[in-house]
Amino acid sequence: MTYIISLLPGDGIGVEVIEATRPLLDDAAHAGGFELETTRYDWGSERYLESGSMMPDDAIETLETYDAILLGAVGHPDIPDHVTLRGMMLPIRKAFDQQVCKRPSVLFDGVESPLRGYDGGDIDFVVYRENTEGEYADAGGHEHRGYPHEVAVQTAVYTRQGTETIVRAAFEAARSREGRLTNVTKSNAQAHGMVFWDEIVEEVSSDYPDVTVERLLVDAASMDLVRRPDEFDVLVASNLFGDILTDIGAIVSGSMGMAPSANINVEGHSPSMFEPVHGSAPDIAGRGIANPLATVLSVSMLFDHLGESEVARDIWRAVESQLADADAPRTPDLGGSATTEAVVEDIRTRL
Amino acid sequence: MTYIISLLPGDGIGVEVIEATRPLLDDAAHAGGFELETTRYDWGSERYLESGSMMPDDAIETLETYDAILLGAVGHPDIPDHVTLRGMMLPIRKAFDQQVCKRPSVLFDGVESPLRGYDGGDIDFVVYRENTEGEYADAGGHEHRGYPHEVAVQTAVYTRQGTETIVRAAFEAARSREGRLTNVTKSNAQAHGMVFWDEIVEEVSSDYPDVTVERLLVDAASMDLVRRPDEFDVLVASNLFGDILTDIGAIVSGSMGMAPSANINVEGHSPSMFEPVHGSAPDIAGRGIANPLATVLSVSMLFDHLGESEVARDIWRAVESQLADADAPRTPDLGGSATTEAVVEDIRTRL
Ligand SMILES: CC(C)[C@H](C(=O)O)[C@@H](O)C(=O)O
Ligand SMILES: CC(C)[C@H](C(=O)O)[C@@H](O)C(=O)O
Repeated sequence: MTYIISLLPGDGIGVEVIEATRPLLDDAAHAGGFELETTRYDWGSERYLESGSMMPDDAIETLETYDAILLGAVGHPDIPDHVTLRGMMLPIRKAFDQQVCKRPSVLFDGVESPLRGYDGGDIDFVVYRENTEGEYADAGGHEHRGYPHEVAVQTAVYTRQGTETIVRAAFEAARSREGRLTNVTKSNAQAHGMVFWDEIVEEVSSDYPDVTVERLLVDAASMDLVRRPDEFDVLVASNLFGDILTDIGAIVSGSMGMAPSANINVEGHSPSMFEPVHGSAPDIAGRGIANPLATVLSVSMLFDHLGESEVARDIWRAVESQLADADAPRTPDLGGSATTEAVVEDIRTRL
Repeated sequence: MTYIISLLPGDGIGVEVIEATRPLLDDAAHAGGFELETTRYDWGSERYLESGSMMPDDAIETLETYDAILLGAVGHPDIPDHVTLRGMMLPIRKAFDQQVCKRPSVLFDGVESPLRGYDGGDIDFVVYRENTEGEYADAGGHEHRGYPHEVAVQTAVYTRQGTETIVRAAFEAARSREGRLTNVTKSNAQAHGMVFWDEIVEEVSSDYPDVTVERLLVDAASMDLVRRPDEFDVLVASNLFGDILTDIGAIVSGSMGMAPSANINVEGHSPSMFEPVHGSAPDIAGRGIANPLATVLSVSMLFDHLGESEVARDIWRAVESQLADADAPRTPDLGGSATTEAVVEDIRTRL
């Protein structure tokens, strides 16, 4: 068995965490008894500054042939975010119809939460985020520039297909976990898109009588992830709301540096993409101190998606074991002073 | 001098906190040497259940004549939120062009934050939330119901007038505080509406060279209100983002039960509305244990808006003094067992 994986380090610390994690990929292949071919594409903001585009014209065709994509991060202090992100990360999610974004929030043993009274092991939920439409749709406009009657509109688009896909994925996840699903919308203020979303959840729920459904408004949900994060099992939300909830989930679980994610093409006809939730972090880029664990956990999710569940589990457990070990190396975001590489090296010894 | 104030208790604990706070209004008038005439309108969900509408047809004309409105809360477990809210609170904000929503987040001395390492006095910021358009615009639709190609759209509308109004209000606030403004958008994913918003902030900032502007994406801002809430001074955000940020602000400051808000008609031709940020809380309604402090602080903001700044300050200080006093009555959300009424009675003795 040979898997071919494309590596897109991207920008800033993305480059560092992907580069540091490469040896782990080979270890995993060795342990799992499969072959791995990786190709690295140096697309991103540096390329944009030289050539005016983040990726080559045939980027999507090039990536299409891979079994999976591992992305670092995208974003550059000198280029507006809507240029970099809409030039690289977002078009990949869309082109490969990666409709389901899965983001676990786990407060690991040995990690301190910023929340009083929460210890390692207390938080363990997963957010299913709609990933290719909703509030991120490229629909809208801007008229009468500079005039007093200037106006801009931004249209969120929710299709039955897209909404049902993410909602079903979330119900399936709830069924395989504790059977509890929290549906997060803002139906009291958005009577068109969000009421439709609630209707789909209601409809799909009849196929999952074993799953309990709770409804929360996004403002209350954001607050509750701080107030009672231990009570959640699976959350399902739109693209924007999932984006917000997963950042809160990451911080209450100790650090943005440990939050992994999977962008999944459900049909399996195109590659799925795995990436840390964190950004390119220009403030610490180039210093070799970025936390690689979000990427390591994303690699675990990648192997799980490819069906290599044993390898996936071993990587996940190696991270658990490292974090639970008070003497193991930690990056500064976790209160240590270890380098990105040292953390990965230590993970390798635990595999 | 006589002020006329309309009281809209609304639903659930809204009724309890408004009723409990009434005596305080009279005390304030007495202390401030002005007259106060209040009229209570029992509009809300009970009315809806009886008559099919939350408010009478001439509700807006009726309210128009008042100097200010004090609202409790709106929401009923048996009626969808988009019916109750769009039947009462939201139309008032719109009809009276209450474009500026001001919401302070203060961790008072004597109150425990759920965040480790934060003590009373450590958090003190204010969110300026656009209040009548943006993502709450009643624009959108829903087609092909029940078909596989069913689709719903929800359009956010940002006018120059609305955006400039909230942005200028926020800059003014920053100037009168510590001179720091955080502009929260999601321009990397919403290239139409949010990029426009950023442009307006950029433009207005040239009139405020004394104010430092920081830009944050809404996901990062949500995280940072948990990670470093002590570092914020003034935040400015769209309707939806302001909604989310203020709920997070309320919880990191100890309890939703202490978060006040002002919905301000900037021109002054229509009444402004003051209301606690919390909802109708059906789970505790009827038990007399709701925290009245969000309403008491909203009353302080009301008097401040009417120009009675001394009375406003005295009420605010009475709340500070109560919270700093370990022997003072507290409602259950703050770890005590006092009733709503007992807390207001104690505030009155401190005036
Ligand atoms: C960078 C940005 C466009 C992206 C998103 O909002 O999806 C990021 O915040 C994420 O969560 O993956
Ligand atoms: C009830 C709801 C419509 C309202 C809002 O979203 O504005 C509330 O959450 C608030 O913050 O005042």
